[in-house]
Amino acid sequence: MNVTQGLRRMLQVDPKGIATIDGDRRHTWAQLGDRVGRLAGALQNLGIKGGDRVAVLMLNSDRYLELYLGIAWAGAVIVPTNTRWSVIEIEDSLHDCRASMLVVDKAFAAMGVQLAKAIPSMTLVYADDDAGPAEAKNYEALIAAAKPIDDAMRKPEDLAGIFYTGGTTGRSKGVMLSHNNLVTNALHTLAEGLFPEGSIYLHAAPMFHLANGAAMFVQLLSGGRNVIIRSFTPEGVMDAVQAEKVNVGLIVPTMIQMLVDHPSFGSRDMSSLKRILYGASPITEALLERAMKKLPHVAFHQLYGMTETAPCATHLPWREHTGEGRAKGRHRGCGRAIIGVEVRIVDVDHKPVPPNTVGEVAIRGNNVMMGYWERPEETAKALIGGWMHTGDGGYMDDDGYFYLVDRIKDMIVTGGENVYSIEVENVLAQHPAVVQCAVVGIPHERWGEAVHAIIVRKPNVAVDPAEVIAFCKEKIAHYKCPRTVDVRDEPLPLSGAGKILKRELRKPFWEKEKKTA
Amino acid sequence: MNVTQGLRRMLQVDPKGIATIDGDRRHTWAQLGDRVGRLAGALQNLGIKGGDRVAVLMLNSDRYLELYLGIAWAGAVIVPTNTRWSVIEIEDSLHDCRASMLVVDKAFAAMGVQLAKAIPSMTLVYADDDAGPAEAKNYEALIAAAKPIDDAMRKPEDLAGIFYTGGTTGRSKGVMLSHNNLVTNALHTLAEGLFPEGSIYLHAAPMFHLANGAAMFVQLLSGGRNVIIRSFTPEGVMDAVQAEKVNVGLIVPTMIQMLVDHPSFGSRDMSSLKRILYGASPITEALLERAMKKLPHVAFHQLYGMTETAPCATHLPWREHTGEGRAKGRHRGCGRAIIGVEVRIVDVDHKPVPPNTVGEVAIRGNNVMMGYWERPEETAKALIGGWMHTGDGGYMDDDGYFYLVDRIKDMIVTGGENVYSIEVENVLAQHPAVVQCAVVGIPHERWGEAVHAIIVRKPNVAVDPAEVIAFCKEKIAHYKCPRTVDVRDEPLPLSGAGKILKRELRKPFWEKEKKTA
Repeated sequence: MNVTQGLRRMLQVDPKGIATIDGDRRHTWAQLGDRVGRLAGALQNLGIKGGDRVAVLMLNSDRYLELYLGIAWAGAVIVPTNTRWSVIEIEDSLHDCRASMLVVDKAFAAMGVQLAKAIPSMTLVYADDDAGPAEAKNYEALIAAAKPIDDAMRKPEDLAGIFYTGGTTGRSKGVMLSHNNLVTNALHTLAEGLFPEGSIYLHAAPMFHLANGAAMFVQLLSGGRNVIIRSFTPEGVMDAVQAEKVNVGLIVPTMIQMLVDHPSFGSRDMSSLKRILYGASPITEALLERAMKKLPHVAFHQLYGMTETAPCATHLPWREHTGEGRAKGRHRGCGRAIIGVEVRIVDVDHKPVPPNTVGEVAIRGNNVMMGYWERPEETAKALIGGWMHTGDGGYMDDDGYFYLVDRIKDMIVTGGENVYSIEVENVLAQHPAVVQCAVVGIPHERWGEAVHAIIVRKPNVAVDPAEVIAFCKEKIAHYKCPRTVDVRDEPLPLSGAGKILKRELRKPFWEKEKKTA
Repeated sequence: MNVTQGLRRMLQVDPKGIATIDGDRRHTWAQLGDRVGRLAGALQNLGIKGGDRVAVLMLNSDRYLELYLGIAWAGAVIVPTNTRWSVIEIEDSLHDCRASMLVVDKAFAAMGVQLAKAIPSMTLVYADDDAGPAEAKNYEALIAAAKPIDDAMRKPEDLAGIFYTGGTTGRSKGVMLSHNNLVTNALHTLAEGLFPEGSIYLHAAPMFHLANGAAMFVQLLSGGRNVIIRSFTPEGVMDAVQAEKVNVGLIVPTMIQMLVDHPSFGSRDMSSLKRILYGASPITEALLERAMKKLPHVAFHQLYGMTETAPCATHLPWREHTGEGRAKGRHRGCGRAIIGVEVRIVDVDHKPVPPNTVGEVAIRGNNVMMGYWERPEETAKALIGGWMHTGDGGYMDDDGYFYLVDRIKDMIVTGGENVYSIEVENVLAQHPAVVQCAVVGIPHERWGEAVHAIIVRKPNVAVDPAEVIAFCKEKIAHYKCPRTVDVRDEPLPLSGAGKILKRELRKPFWEKEKKTA
């Protein structure tokens, strides 16, 4: 089936039920269906054809959810754009997928106008409460003027969305996910029991990110309610939970920490909240303790996966965070393969290794992506024998629980975002004072990992770390830039093959962490 | 994915957990995996190739479950055979699908030998506790001698099984279900929350039937436990529930009635039982009352569907059997479309009709069959625009609940079995004393519907109803034969087009039922 199936079903099953809540605005499934049909009609009127790419650069809103559905309803392909990227990075991705349209909200109106000038073939649409810039078509006006059209009824194997992830060469790759990938992942998540009937889900994580997207597709398939806030803030979450009796949310450990440590925590009624799903990194002992004390009625569930697996691959259920599971240290891992998905650890020849042996995590299932957009070589490297080779290092214990130990592809996960070291290194290498450089992830209480750069300077040239960081911020997204820079005179340690020994560079930071853990 | 995916996953996730219980025999997932791998190896040694059809004619057993997996593991196609069919009907279906192998148990050993003689190209395998007939290979000996092979890894779109259903022309049709059909249906059922983690399912309904098969595929996908009894008996169910702490079962209303009305009911501990799924017909008021009183801790859920939809299409949850739902009469219908499936009512031109209008039930989803085996014309008639046209008449109310009112294709459902009137009429018409005949379903307390024949006799020829029934029993399965025969002299009422007005014939029986309901 396709990602619009749940909407079609809900129009029959519960048309008067509330589908979306965004501030004071509530839409029933019938209203959502009407708007989606009109939106698809408007897209068609603007020349969008089946398979065309429509990019969205917006903060969270009910309109974002409508776009996920409406673009699919029109038979087109959504390209949710990372709101934290620089304009250069975004322009690059829009060129890469040859986007026919870009939809922006108030927060990104100026950037949208700039991008539309740079790519004149691209139609700009403004989707917010006001009229918006003159250069853009107004979303509400388009919907009001269009007649609803029938669902284009994309096939399961058709491309539904292109989700860009940080690229290893400084240019990001577009992960192609089919309707079947997204629907299958939603069914797997439902089968795991994470979204029982009556789920009221809070969209606090960014809607462009597939972690939130996956939860959204679950709600759209099963008819759950969507409560939407612009972006994560501890008080915003607390207000929405209290006002709308939210019972499930997805937030990364960084956000959990900000929530439970917030000074006004305890001032709102959070008793409706039953389940918090988290990912991106394990939860630390200290945070788990605090979270359990502050939210004793909440079950925490870890999900591990990646955009390429649409995204869920493993699940660490709540019970493994407590009692016997915790005594065994299972909360430090990412759980077991979820229903419908197979996970294994392979060696460099892609052959499975025995339990307790470190290798690369590989994932198989109907959730595995179609490939990277127009990158057959990178696709062939990632998808081998039907298995997605994640680039994550890890091992499996005797009971089928997985533990991540390293990033084979040298990726840093900071605050839920992926940063590829090489991309940052490419920028650093452009700095006139830099002779040699390496970027590694180092432990960070709030972000899980922080980007740390080690540079070797030209002899007798003064280097200011703050200036190096500012240099990077001009070129790449802020979250990718080093937070700390270590300036050295001696050359970096090299392997026999002449590669920088990053493990050596990381070691002192992580050993310290081990002792404190 | 394919139907063996869950086994592969369970071999990693819980190899020591109990997968099957059949009397005193318990197999872990690891043992099951070993036996399935060997069985597939044995099939390969016997010349079974990818796509070959392997028929199974057995009562319920753990070996039947192994065959479902092992045949798929070898890349072949299972043909579960109706144990209630006559030898002629079975031979017909084996010819139709050109079965390479037939597996029988003790109950069907003699019939197996007879069939193998009739079809010499077919290998006969005997799967039971003893040695079996000399004409058959012994299943346990084959497994002991074979080496386990790797999973053939059939693709989602590959044919997994051919499930024969009663044909409208006296010859049954083979419903082709893909791996994707079966896995998708299992995911839909899991998404509906009917098999939460820790489900212990009782195989009391026949394993050849897809109603039970669907529950089995759920358990195999999600790693639930399978408790197996040879066939349904009230005491067998009670013993198994008590001994193995069964918490979910699937039995038709006929069986529910036999269970709760059994004299020894109450002598066993049934407290583990949480959920009974039923289908084939709505539950009567009277039975619902008795069942609720006798099993107050059990939630009853109705599922409607057909083999062609793998099989689930609608779900009437427990809450609609009580309180407000019951006051609205929803327990007389079959519920709403399940997650992942769309259902609608269409007119003779296959166009949707408004709510509360009677038409044909049509079903769309990834669960809809590939088609009928080597019957392109019948496939084209059933699958129109992606919708399975069920032949069931019904309507949808304003709240999306479906109610069945008639069988468009003139089918009788008796004790969970489908009987096509025309097949029975074809036999009756061969009787020397019969001038004209019609077969209709009439209400029956135990079987839902009973087969009733109205015949017009040759003038001045004495006709004994019992002799007419005996005449039918020689030619077709006993459950298809009329239970009652009404002998008339006056011609049957005809429509303008000369068709027998069956509605007129049924009317007096069903009006009486309405009054008593």
